[in-house]
Amino acid sequence: MTSTKDAVTARGEWVRQANRFTERITADGSSAYPVEPGRYRLVVSLACPWAHRSVIVRRLLGLEDVISLGVVDPIRDERGWRFTLDPRGRDPVTGLEFLSEAYLATDPDFDGRFTVPAVIDTTTGKVATNDYPQLTLDLSTQWRRHHRAGAPELYPERLRAEIDEVNAGVFRDVNQGVYRCGFARSQEAYEEAFDALFARLDALSERLRERRYLVGDSITEADIRLFTTLVRFDAVYHGHFKCNRHKLTELPVLWAYARDLFQTPGFGDTVDFDHIKRHYYRTHPGINPNGLVPAGPDLSGWHTEHGREALGGSAFGEGTAP
Amino acid sequence: MTSTKDAVTARGEWVRQANRFTERITADGSSAYPVEPGRYRLVVSLACPWAHRSVIVRRLLGLEDVISLGVVDPIRDERGWRFTLDPRGRDPVTGLEFLSEAYLATDPDFDGRFTVPAVIDTTTGKVATNDYPQLTLDLSTQWRRHHRAGAPELYPERLRAEIDEVNAGVFRDVNQGVYRCGFARSQEAYEEAFDALFARLDALSERLRERRYLVGDSITEADIRLFTTLVRFDAVYHGHFKCNRHKLTELPVLWAYARDLFQTPGFGDTVDFDHIKRHYYRTHPGINPNGLVPAGPDLSGWHTEHGREALGGSAFGEGTAP
Repeated sequence: MTSTKDAVTARGEWVRQANRFTERITADGSSAYPVEPGRYRLVVSLACPWAHRSVIVRRLLGLEDVISLGVVDPIRDERGWRFTLDPRGRDPVTGLEFLSEAYLATDPDFDGRFTVPAVIDTTTGKVATNDYPQLTLDLSTQWRRHHRAGAPELYPERLRAEIDEVNAGVFRDVNQGVYRCGFARSQEAYEEAFDALFARLDALSERLRERRYLVGDSITEADIRLFTTLVRFDAVYHGHFKCNRHKLTELPVLWAYARDLFQTPGFGDTVDFDHIKRHYYRTHPGINPNGLVPAGPDLSGWHTEHGREALGGSAFGEGTAP
Repeated sequence: MTSTKDAVTARGEWVRQANRFTERITADGSSAYPVEPGRYRLVVSLACPWAHRSVIVRRLLGLEDVISLGVVDPIRDERGWRFTLDPRGRDPVTGLEFLSEAYLATDPDFDGRFTVPAVIDTTTGKVATNDYPQLTLDLSTQWRRHHRAGAPELYPERLRAEIDEVNAGVFRDVNQGVYRCGFARSQEAYEEAFDALFARLDALSERLRERRYLVGDSITEADIRLFTTLVRFDAVYHGHFKCNRHKLTELPVLWAYARDLFQTPGFGDTVDFDHIKRHYYRTHPGINPNGLVPAGPDLSGWHTEHGREALGGSAFGEGTAP
């Protein structure tokens, strides 16, 4: 299903809207949007796992001075994401008060949810892309000329088939799976999503038992995509989305793997648990009508030793830490 | 505050209604209700921690043939607790379809919640008492002549002051504390309840580190009252009531203590996790509007070794297991 709006099937399954703006920003000028330092603004919520991917990749590749970053308020109101964290409530670069303004400037008929990440072309104020899966791959491949010295290879050609395959399962059952649990509209749809989620987490635990990273010997796009869901797991998905067979802290392999990444530059330093918790618990009245934000969980465990160095591999391969 | 209805303070604190029917059933005939085998029916929900106390005590003391037990459907509708688990939807002893009928037969003006446990005098169909804290103490003290041989001393005179003191803190911060978290109407009230709850759990962990039971060397009323909240903690309070600093499974002393009790006759064998989960998640639309019941948590840990025998003590003192 590729509706431009979120939908619910007859069986009560929640279906995420398709990404509307799927232009690519390309190095060879084959698309409407050429790679160009300073031209684009990446708009994210620090709460959002889909947006978080691009924040991590941008930082690992050293693109901070090339693509600027706008951060929205974690609490959406009925008009969507807001720039209320900025002086006078406007994004200083684009002048936007609401992300929706850019969406409607691009397509006046757009009637879906206004989503992050969105890349805005600052020369026109329009949304170049909100296609998050392509976005991070393009940061790795199309923006290569602007990477910092020592930028890691996050999507190396020889591993792409394997990365794509891992990503497909992680997307369906984990990244998207937690939402399918939380937004299910029938017990049956919820339980199907729950079973698929934990079956996949069990399989990933097996895969990661003897290897430090998901694919190859270094961090790749696959690790980034899994991390952004795992880091939110106990803080929001476990309770708010009822993904509660176990906490992440009760799955020893995945918990050590997630801590290893968390303690790697580019990962933990891009996590904002306050934004994460306030966003989820205060933006979904359909599942948390009183808007109370849990005081837990205790997060101190993220900084404890993980022991994964013993498995070998090196975080950035032939590259260096940002 | 002793309102006959649940209330919310100006600061958003939830306040439980007072127990309306506080007659006692006495051995010496000093009250309207004399101890008399076969006369009373104890009506409970297996979901309810306040009712669960009386189920455990009745079983430990061997009062099953003396006071009969009625069990309501875990799902209340707008008319309250229902006997829909019984043939033709009526309690076979009292003929009730709804517990409310007995409340209104006793006090036609009653306008609070119809609560369990309720002890019904089968000679009149009226509620003798819904005063759960007194009820279990009276089962120990007033019904003594009808206890089984080998019934344990759950409220021994020499320990009463200490038991009462422990119970007071456990009631306020734990038994009641989880509800104060879940039904808080302000972030401030919620966080106060949360902090008090976990501070108390930490203190109880300390107390139980070197001693097997809360007071003395055997199980007392104090252990029963703490157990009925602990056994529901991960299944409902952690997520549904946002009591999520840690799961019980992450608090090693309390988790071992709770497992020890769970594996003791009268405790685990009176727990119905299905009733517990369905009741909480399907009866509070104000905090779980979609009514989905979590598939987790994994409960297999309840049957694992606890190692608490090493601390000494004996479950039933000079008594025996039921």
